Amino acid sequence: MASPSRFSRRNFLVTSGTGAAALCVSGNAGGYTAEDMRSRAADDTLTGISKWELDTPALCVDLDKLTQNIATMQSKLGGMKVASRPHGKTHKCPTIAKLQLAAGSVGICAAKLSEAEVFSASGIEPILMTTSNVTAGKIRRAMALRKTNHQFVQAVDYPQNARDLNDAAKEAGLVADVVVDIAIGTRSGVPAGDRALALAQLVDTLPNLKLRGIISYDGSAQHFKGFRNRLEQTLNRFAPSVETYDRFKRAGLSTEIFSGGGTGTYNILPKAPGVTDVQVGSYIFMDCQYLEIGGESNDEVYTDFAPSLTVVTTVLNTYFPKSITTDAGAKALTLNKPGPWVIGEKDFSYNAGSDEFGVIKYETAGRSYTVGDKLELIVPHCDPAVNEYDQMYAIRNDRVEAVWPIAARGRSQ
Amino acid sequence: MASPSRFSRRNFLVTSGTGAAALCVSGNAGGYTAEDMRSRAADDTLTGISKWELDTPALCVDLDKLTQNIATMQSKLGGMKVASRPHGKTHKCPTIAKLQLAAGSVGICAAKLSEAEVFSASGIEPILMTTSNVTAGKIRRAMALRKTNHQFVQAVDYPQNARDLNDAAKEAGLVADVVVDIAIGTRSGVPAGDRALALAQLVDTLPNLKLRGIISYDGSAQHFKGFRNRLEQTLNRFAPSVETYDRFKRAGLSTEIFSGGGTGTYNILPKAPGVTDVQVGSYIFMDCQYLEIGGESNDEVYTDFAPSLTVVTTVLNTYFPKSITTDAGAKALTLNKPGPWVIGEKDFSYNAGSDEFGVIKYETAGRSYTVGDKLELIVPHCDPAVNEYDQMYAIRNDRVEAVWPIAARGRSQ
Repeated sequence: MASPSRFSRRNFLVTSGTGAAALCVSGNAGGYTAEDMRSRAADDTLTGISKWELDTPALCVDLDKLTQNIATMQSKLGGMKVASRPHGKTHKCPTIAKLQLAAGSVGICAAKLSEAEVFSASGIEPILMTTSNVTAGKIRRAMALRKTNHQFVQAVDYPQNARDLNDAAKEAGLVADVVVDIAIGTRSGVPAGDRALALAQLVDTLPNLKLRGIISYDGSAQHFKGFRNRLEQTLNRFAPSVETYDRFKRAGLSTEIFSGGGTGTYNILPKAPGVTDVQVGSYIFMDCQYLEIGGESNDEVYTDFAPSLTVVTTVLNTYFPKSITTDAGAKALTLNKPGPWVIGEKDFSYNAGSDEFGVIKYETAGRSYTVGDKLELIVPHCDPAVNEYDQMYAIRNDRVEAVWPIAARGRSQ
Repeated sequence: MASPSRFSRRNFLVTSGTGAAALCVSGNAGGYTAEDMRSRAADDTLTGISKWELDTPALCVDLDKLTQNIATMQSKLGGMKVASRPHGKTHKCPTIAKLQLAAGSVGICAAKLSEAEVFSASGIEPILMTTSNVTAGKIRRAMALRKTNHQFVQAVDYPQNARDLNDAAKEAGLVADVVVDIAIGTRSGVPAGDRALALAQLVDTLPNLKLRGIISYDGSAQHFKGFRNRLEQTLNRFAPSVETYDRFKRAGLSTEIFSGGGTGTYNILPKAPGVTDVQVGSYIFMDCQYLEIGGESNDEVYTDFAPSLTVVTTVLNTYFPKSITTDAGAKALTLNKPGPWVIGEKDFSYNAGSDEFGVIKYETAGRSYTVGDKLELIVPHCDPAVNEYDQMYAIRNDRVEAVWPIAARGRSQ
């Protein structure tokens, strides 16, 4: 079933420090619900509750690994003289955003305005919104946000949008900070070159907008497999943005911010001239998709950061040969590929294609499983998986230390 | 790009009454947010707000189509002398559950205990929980639910689970109603035949359990394409359940409930002897997956029910040839296949693979599109799409008539 290379990746998960000791725990006297845990967190009576006692599916983040991932990123980027501006779309959790800022990040990115509003309401000031606000309603709200949050910066990619933002800023009695979003690929942003330059020049002339620089994000590049391949393709695809950045400079336009990249290219994009910061997101959690891309020092598994985010699930059925059914399906894990990895089991193939159930098929298992057992999973893709939950459990040494609201969960507007 | 058969399905969507008139509306003075709409609903000041004025992505349900779908199902099942017991996992919305009960459904199914708790708390009594509760915590909660809700019935599929339920029922001072879940396939339930019979006999001897019958759901069969194929395979796969049902009857065990099936087999399962009700879910909303399976009277498109559930999205980018970017990606629509269908456009291929953006590719378009335009989409798979939102907008003639909380959203426990 498992290919040799998949096997060796999974072997890594079994033998490395990703949780091999805690494969599975039977019995569950507590079964603490989401509501139980919120009220215990409020009363400060979480002491001693194990992650294995949580009602499942339960979304957990290992605090030591999370903290280490944040420190590693800061240290590596510091060595390359660039900053981090982590993407809040990954965690949607103000508590984590504050940890990132405390560790030295220069700001937090937000993908959607409603997400930025949640972060700002929770006291986070340096927010860069990477998607343009194009409707009258969103533009008005963005200005209301900017009015109370002086470090709010938003993307612009159309001349008409720049004029609309300028009018709204004037109406709100403020000067709004914007960055020009330069496209890589064909998803969002203004094409690099003449049109980007003309847009920046327009912004520069509009009295109620302040040009702060450039964002240019390459969503596809993050998951190119193999470090050398990713390095080469990323820099090639980024070249038109760099060329446009040079033209901004020559034209005397602000390039104070030149931001791009992500977890897959955090150690690649800083090689491009002018880059000020990287919009890393998944590095705090990791997931199966990122584990599979390979890193600079390990071609097979991306080991730069430790998988900290897991879902604990309960075994519901073992009647059928070489098959285990769990309570975590697509509504708990999403349909992203590769499917979830079961920590401690190298030959399990987990299918989360059913809405309510997970179905594991296997040839060999490290132990026998019975109904009520718990399994811990690395999620396929962290961002949308987090978005399925209202809260995550902050875990240290398998104990719940805190309950963190995923305050911007569902904020896709 | 589009295959001929895909084309003809989409052509159906353009030319039928699925919303062809309202392709797209430019401008958006209001941009009413989720919070705006909740407070207007509370103040009874929704009057006149159009679905095109909602902050996007926005989840909408057309009231006339929803009501018609419910009526159609009741009438068709009534003609076959079986009842409906609609699945609440599809809508997670007590308001819709109450409409279904008012129209004559004998109960509501719930996939998870936390979902059943929400429905029960909202005043819904006849609830059948189709997944077993296997942990001590969930079993205790199930009994607490049963204590206040005398019409709560839960599934059992293991002898040990039956004994655990019996002990907990005794502890709670009640007799709990259970149905034996008979497996079709290898996902959940006890295998048909001897083991199912023995389990039912055990339940029958346990003093604090009351056997109410059988559930036997075939998840795979719902989406078998082509009516004749689906008919034949469904009844073949269901035959062991019918045989076990006969053995229950001969053994004098309760078969008061013999429930199974879904939207894809609502007019097939009643042909099996003994079936009392079908656990239909998606019929109220429909989605691209169901539209593709074909029906008894239309081999190409499943036209038995009207697509009532849509997502309104905003165009963000049109710089790139034959390409449109929108604000509804995987977090608004899920990754289910086939991808969303754009109402009114038969040649659009919508990719919701990006977390935050939708990307449409096309060769020909019915009109030209510009940034800020709105599009309306039929979702790939209704259940997990609904689970991405906190509320849905109940629409009549394109106006918002009510805001319905998706109260069990995220209740995957």
